[in-house]
Amino acid sequence: MIKVGVLGATGMVGQRFIQMLSNHPMFELEVLAASPRSAGKKYKDAAYWYQSEPIPEDIGEMVVVPTDPKHEAFKDVDVVFSALPADLARELEPAFAKEGKLVFSNASAMRMEKDVPLIVPEVNEEHFKLIEIQRENRKWDGAIVTNPNCSTICLVITLKPILDKFGIEAVNVTTLQAVSGAGYDGVPSMAIIDNVIPYIKNEEEKMQTESLKILGEFDGSEVKNANFKVGASCNRICVIDGHIESIFVKTKEPAEPEDIKEAMDKFDPLKDLDLPTYAKPIVVKEEPDRPQPRLDRNEGNGMSIVVGRIRKDPIFDVKYTALEHNTIRGAAGASVLNAELFVKKYL
Amino acid sequence: MIKVGVLGATGMVGQRFIQMLSNHPMFELEVLAASPRSAGKKYKDAAYWYQSEPIPEDIGEMVVVPTDPKHEAFKDVDVVFSALPADLARELEPAFAKEGKLVFSNASAMRMEKDVPLIVPEVNEEHFKLIEIQRENRKWDGAIVTNPNCSTICLVITLKPILDKFGIEAVNVTTLQAVSGAGYDGVPSMAIIDNVIPYIKNEEEKMQTESLKILGEFDGSEVKNANFKVGASCNRICVIDGHIESIFVKTKEPAEPEDIKEAMDKFDPLKDLDLPTYAKPIVVKEEPDRPQPRLDRNEGNGMSIVVGRIRKDPIFDVKYTALEHNTIRGAAGASVLNAELFVKKYL
Amino acid sequence: MIKVGVLGATGMVGQRFIQMLSNHPMFELEVLAASPRSAGKKYKDAAYWYQSEPIPEDIGEMVVVPTDPKHEAFKDVDVVFSALPADLARELEPAFAKEGKLVFSNASAMRMEKDVPLIVPEVNEEHFKLIEIQRENRKWDGAIVTNPNCSTICLVITLKPILDKFGIEAVNVTTLQAVSGAGYDGVPSMAIIDNVIPYIKNEEEKMQTESLKILGEFDGSEVKNANFKVGASCNRICVIDGHIESIFVKTKEPAEPEDIKEAMDKFDPLKDLDLPTYAKPIVVKEEPDRPQPRLDRNEGNGMSIVVGRIRKDPIFDVKYTALEHNTIRGAAGASVLNAELFVKKYL
Amino acid sequence: MIKVGVLGATGMVGQRFIQMLSNHPMFELEVLAASPRSAGKKYKDAAYWYQSEPIPEDIGEMVVVPTDPKHEAFKDVDVVFSALPADLARELEPAFAKEGKLVFSNASAMRMEKDVPLIVPEVNEEHFKLIEIQRENRKWDGAIVTNPNCSTICLVITLKPILDKFGIEAVNVTTLQAVSGAGYDGVPSMAIIDNVIPYIKNEEEKMQTESLKILGEFDGSEVKNANFKVGASCNRICVIDGHIESIFVKTKEPAEPEDIKEAMDKFDPLKDLDLPTYAKPIVVKEEPDRPQPRLDRNEGNGMSIVVGRIRKDPIFDVKYTALEHNTIRGAAGASVLNAELFVKKYL
Repeated sequence: MIKVGVLGATGMVGQRFIQMLSNHPMFELEVLAASPRSAGKKYKDAAYWYQSEPIPEDIGEMVVVPTDPKHEAFKDVDVVFSALPADLARELEPAFAKEGKLVFSNASAMRMEKDVPLIVPEVNEEHFKLIEIQRENRKWDGAIVTNPNCSTICLVITLKPILDKFGIEAVNVTTLQAVSGAGYDGVPSMAIIDNVIPYIKNEEEKMQTESLKILGEFDGSEVKNANFKVGASCNRICVIDGHIESIFVKTKEPAEPEDIKEAMDKFDPLKDLDLPTYAKPIVVKEEPDRPQPRLDRNEGNGMSIVVGRIRKDPIFDVKYTALEHNTIRGAAGASVLNAELFVKKYL
Repeated sequence: MIKVGVLGATGMVGQRFIQMLSNHPMFELEVLAASPRSAGKKYKDAAYWYQSEPIPEDIGEMVVVPTDPKHEAFKDVDVVFSALPADLARELEPAFAKEGKLVFSNASAMRMEKDVPLIVPEVNEEHFKLIEIQRENRKWDGAIVTNPNCSTICLVITLKPILDKFGIEAVNVTTLQAVSGAGYDGVPSMAIIDNVIPYIKNEEEKMQTESLKILGEFDGSEVKNANFKVGASCNRICVIDGHIESIFVKTKEPAEPEDIKEAMDKFDPLKDLDLPTYAKPIVVKEEPDRPQPRLDRNEGNGMSIVVGRIRKDPIFDVKYTALEHNTIRGAAGASVLNAELFVKKYL
Repeated sequence: MIKVGVLGATGMVGQRFIQMLSNHPMFELEVLAASPRSAGKKYKDAAYWYQSEPIPEDIGEMVVVPTDPKHEAFKDVDVVFSALPADLARELEPAFAKEGKLVFSNASAMRMEKDVPLIVPEVNEEHFKLIEIQRENRKWDGAIVTNPNCSTICLVITLKPILDKFGIEAVNVTTLQAVSGAGYDGVPSMAIIDNVIPYIKNEEEKMQTESLKILGEFDGSEVKNANFKVGASCNRICVIDGHIESIFVKTKEPAEPEDIKEAMDKFDPLKDLDLPTYAKPIVVKEEPDRPQPRLDRNEGNGMSIVVGRIRKDPIFDVKYTALEHNTIRGAAGASVLNAELFVKKYL
Repeated sequence: MIKVGVLGATGMVGQRFIQMLSNHPMFELEVLAASPRSAGKKYKDAAYWYQSEPIPEDIGEMVVVPTDPKHEAFKDVDVVFSALPADLARELEPAFAKEGKLVFSNASAMRMEKDVPLIVPEVNEEHFKLIEIQRENRKWDGAIVTNPNCSTICLVITLKPILDKFGIEAVNVTTLQAVSGAGYDGVPSMAIIDNVIPYIKNEEEKMQTESLKILGEFDGSEVKNANFKVGASCNRICVIDGHIESIFVKTKEPAEPEDIKEAMDKFDPLKDLDLPTYAKPIVVKEEPDRPQPRLDRNEGNGMSIVVGRIRKDPIFDVKYTALEHNTIRGAAGASVLNAELFVKKYL
């Protein structure tokens, strides 16, 4: 059992980390770190618990520590999961890496650094090799591994089997994103009831750049971006959990909807590794009106992307709708799966 | 004053017709027709009134008649507005035309008939000339004039100034559509609270075909479809009124976002005609997070399309977000504006 | 294992029955009955499955039969669960009882019949004795056992420990009820988004009369109603599952909030019976802002009433807020628990 | 024309003040004051405008000033409307009164001070006489006049005609309150989508105490509280604007629902004064399922309380449902109407 800690433990993604790490067969959750305001309190007093399942009992009694890599609580901890806001992440994640910790981060701060792997296990595990370059560059024994933005993860998982089999020339995507993606206080109810906000700061840029890094190839010294274009338009809608994406793909080789469906359905690259959080990455639905967030977001314990309506498009070759549980597959679960894969195969 | 009637007067679009025709300076609302179940009752007893403004008082006391073109109530009526369901429209609208009525229809039944004009006044008024061909073909004195599907209207109004100035090569659009578009009982609350339905029957096909007819050219005998492709993906979301569309356009001539903005902003083709229901067709917003349905849908009394976020796209030349009040600009208001223009200019 | 069937199997409560009876340790789900429209089809084709967990696989393949007590499919079935609409229930439930079946019904039709037990297991199991009188009266070998209306169940479970310990003089309750209580198509989204409907047909009457029967005493020949008054006001709100009730109680003996809390917390009358669906009937929350539907409705697998904010009131002695999962504890789960108790203790 | 200012001009209630005071026939809006962060900016740059009608054009260009009673901008201002948060109101409203201003405040800070009138114009205008006592006590030339909490206003307006005609022994009320009552950022969407929060801090206490002061009698030196009890339970629900209240009243003299209805319907005490913001205080609806927030909240430009479902109750004599537009009638409109009445009749 590897001892782990969570940074930003009281927030929404922090709570998801706790749910996924409590009773985890590989990891033992030893440290909960949060802001000075929370440090010193019992977790159950420090956090307003937003989840519909109660706080795991032992977790509620744990005392929150400050987010300080030199704090003694971290002494025996090998892995930390980061749900820090971007500005704090930029400062603190390197500090933890310097102390020798493996940092699996959901924050955006370090994602696009050239020597930081941006990993989706089913898509680009070979990018873990950037860690060696990172350690050399930065003179530390730890490492920072990031996972992409929630809406990027959904996109690239569905693109990967298409890319492998047919090649990709262009991708267009419009998102309908859940409010939980903005954090608990992120979207006031006044802003979203009977409404849409057709704007999420930096989200389109993240989708357009992160996805090309992830789908790019590591050539031994760096990652070469994938060689196609992604255009995105992002919207916030009145849904609690579950991002919907309308995706259009122009392939290199001709591909019928049935071919795409088969490629997605067969896509299951890590199934033999027995990773605890792993689920079939793509579940294809046949019903004409699926996927739907409320009905499908918990597929594969929230770790499967649910795809439906794979069909022809007059301009692109194929279009389909994808759904992702944004705070599980798109955030905490992404980091945990990264850690599971790394520990199992690369440690 | 021209005497008019409304077919399908008790439903949601029927109610919008009533709101727009009550106290109208050109039209006098004389007849309300509905199903046999409602016929013979006072309107206020026949209809469950869904609007936030009360029923215009005199309207509430009117007695509903059956949807029968030979009913004496229609004797002095020259124009009927149709909010009939498609199957009834296919049978009844021609019957009214045979009786010499001008039928302005929001129904989909006749839209794609070769000799039926599918009109958006700001976009293709010259298609009114199809009426002569229609009368000849069908041996009637009346006429059927249709307006497009709600989501098509929003799209083509924003495309028209781009097409005129820069030409268009391809259009991609993903919609986020309000529940009112499906009629009062169309979307159960169980289906849409905390949810998205990524499917609206036939909607994508309508957007992909209707828009090319509308933006096509009348060559004296028929309408030649516009010569580009439209690809659409349609979603239903938890909003009462107001469709949002994420639109991507590849132009023939190079166009910067500023150029597009200027073209849209200047687009005001019918402003000199003084049509009662006319409003500036496109209102461009500068704020980064607009248009929003709840805040912007009533712009121009619900008749203006509100456009925002005009920006570059990596694949298409430009992308933007458009909002339309779907039961006003996208339905009843569209028919009324068609009738106003026709009466003023072509009668 | 007792063989059971579900009547009204394709509707919302029918689906909950299926979820609760699939893999049940006492019951084997053998027959799914529904309307003629569905009969003859595989269940997965006959029902639009609204639940977020998939249809249990074997269930999906079962062929739906008509709701006919003489149909051979019911031959070996001893127990049927009824999710029929009231009008059909009034006709069909007696027909099943005549065929010797034990009918556990969630329908309202027979609840207030003098010889039909209206049971909440934790509250009035002695009313099962009415079955003997029922059989004598009606000359049948089967029996009809009903459970109350969803909002009544929530109310009486919380009243029972108060009644037992302090007596009750008067009860006032205002409900905030979820849309699922009206069935899948019951509340159009147009009716409830950004809205409240302050009216649910017959609901207040049901709460005001059913609760007095349930809390009444069986004197060997009939149930004498409880001797206090209940006043109710019922509202429909924009929530998927989970009824909230603001309850005010005037007690006979003086009672402090702490006393009420203790009585509720200790209330656990059937805990030793090991009934599969049983959960602690009342879970008391200490947080000032609980219970909340989305966070607390699944407490005890949806079978626990969650109570919070027990406090003094200027007029009544005590007031509190209660939450019930209305389609589980308030519907299917109520019938199943009735059946479990009956089979275990009275068969 | 009396020159007026608004304190807290950028917030939600501040914006409603601006909407109601722009183009007001008695008041000229001269000063917009807000926090130091906003001071010095144009209003349109300082405020995020949440309303569906655009900012009145001249208002958008006004420069915001700090909330300082000695600021020269206030020199010619006689009346200020306060939408300040309670803590700032406690400090700043007296400071403005000291400078000779008439402060009409929507804040809760000073409401229960013995010498501060808590006014609902239709209910207790004689309490304005407290101003003389206030001025004597506090040695200032200005005055502070408050209006009650939003949910209290709705309650007392409907109680007043009952009290006058039948007397009142006890009142019970459960509220379903809109999110706008908590301010723009007050209720995160994560907290309220598919949910209820059965708790609003201090709200029940306000309803239980404020209403007795308002319905009390001024005896020449102080207000004697009304001599009955009010018990309240308050809930936040997923509605933008419009509080619903389920109200139960025990009267002194016997009263049938029809009597109550007639008393409410006739209640129109200020109709002859021609106050610009005045509307019929109570509009009674006959339909069984009204009032509803989305359909009825704008009745009387948002100034009428809409009442429906007046019916008997087993415990109280009568129960009914009332609806109030909480940010108009329950906040800004309440202060403006207070000012109109005071200026017209008492200045």
